[in-house]
Amino acid sequence: MDDDPATEILEATYRALCDRGYADVTLGDIAAEADTSKGLIHYYYDDKETLFAEFLDFLYDRYTARIESVEGETARDRLAGLFETVLTDEGSATGEQLRTAMLEVNAQAPYDEAIRARLARFDDLLYERVRSAIADGIEAGEFDDEVDPAVAAEFFVTAIYGAHARRAAADRSPDRLADVMTRYAERHLVADGPTEVPS
Amino acid sequence: MDDDPATEILEATYRALCDRGYADVTLGDIAAEADTSKGLIHYYYDDKETLFAEFLDFLYDRYTARIESVEGETARDRLAGLFETVLTDEGSATGEQLRTAMLEVNAQAPYDEAIRARLARFDDLLYERVRSAIADGIEAGEFDDEVDPAVAAEFFVTAIYGAHARRAAADRSPDRLADVMTRYAERHLVADGPTEVPS
Repeated sequence: MDDDPATEILEATYRALCDRGYADVTLGDIAAEADTSKGLIHYYYDDKETLFAEFLDFLYDRYTARIESVEGETARDRLAGLFETVLTDEGSATGEQLRTAMLEVNAQAPYDEAIRARLARFDDLLYERVRSAIADGIEAGEFDDEVDPAVAAEFFVTAIYGAHARRAAADRSPDRLADVMTRYAERHLVADGPTEVPS
Repeated sequence: MDDDPATEILEATYRALCDRGYADVTLGDIAAEADTSKGLIHYYYDDKETLFAEFLDFLYDRYTARIESVEGETARDRLAGLFETVLTDEGSATGEQLRTAMLEVNAQAPYDEAIRARLARFDDLLYERVRSAIADGIEAGEFDDEVDPAVAAEFFVTAIYGAHARRAAADRSPDRLADVMTRYAERHLVADGPTEVPS
């Protein structure tokens, strides 16, 4: 193990979850993936629920880092970068598998307060980054000042959730949805209206 | 039983699913709810998987009827009616419980071709109704003719999925999301731009 054992177990949880999905993954799978024993997992984490709560924090930290690393010369670039970060899979099968597994975790949220609280934190972060990109764009004159950043951000964040749900549930293409989202933002936020972007 | 037994079992499946969620519901729960025996359920449906596949068809037929009953004097009314039908819970706890249970079913879709195919049918129906309301509105001069009905419908259907996912996963208010959606449609589709509707 290169990392400390507790972190290595969380990394293994990530890989095992991608492979097997939330419903089927066991502590045995995670131990095998981490090349350690179930005993050592229990030493760090009381049970599967505790491990998954910690795992969600771990995932949230990664996700925060990815979202906070989105830069752009303009607010408009930053908004497009945010969409790209949350909607594309970087061409990797792992991203797709993780999203599928996370949908399962999300589906447990109504029954589990700890999961719900953590997902609400993801939600707050994403909402705030989208809202501030839109607000900055309005201030810089890039976006139409009739747009309400809070309402627009609420709408876009909702659509981002929908893109993930629809992709997994009904086999709709993620790329098409990311594309539609970006075209909508261009069409409806940009101060001079649609120019180079066809509706 | 008032209906034929097979239909009564599907009605009972609906109630049991609302009460217990997909992961926990058993054929025994459904038998108790239908006031019948597990034996009779097995007579009509081979196993839980077969029953749920039939149940999704049953649900789809109901949903189709609800969506097809949406009327309106204008295309704009019809679009608002569609949003209301799919986004509000008619003030009932049952609607909320069913949506929660359906999120669980959705989360199984990546692992189950039969569920995926049925959800894709839901998706096609909703998409087509939204698209045709927008296309009719453009033809009638109610909506801006620069709007592409296919792109706009894709976006709205995606946002509808997102509203359900976000409500359950992160405890966001459904009413607020339905409201945001309607305001967005008013703002961005209506031919003369936003008038009485604040952004």
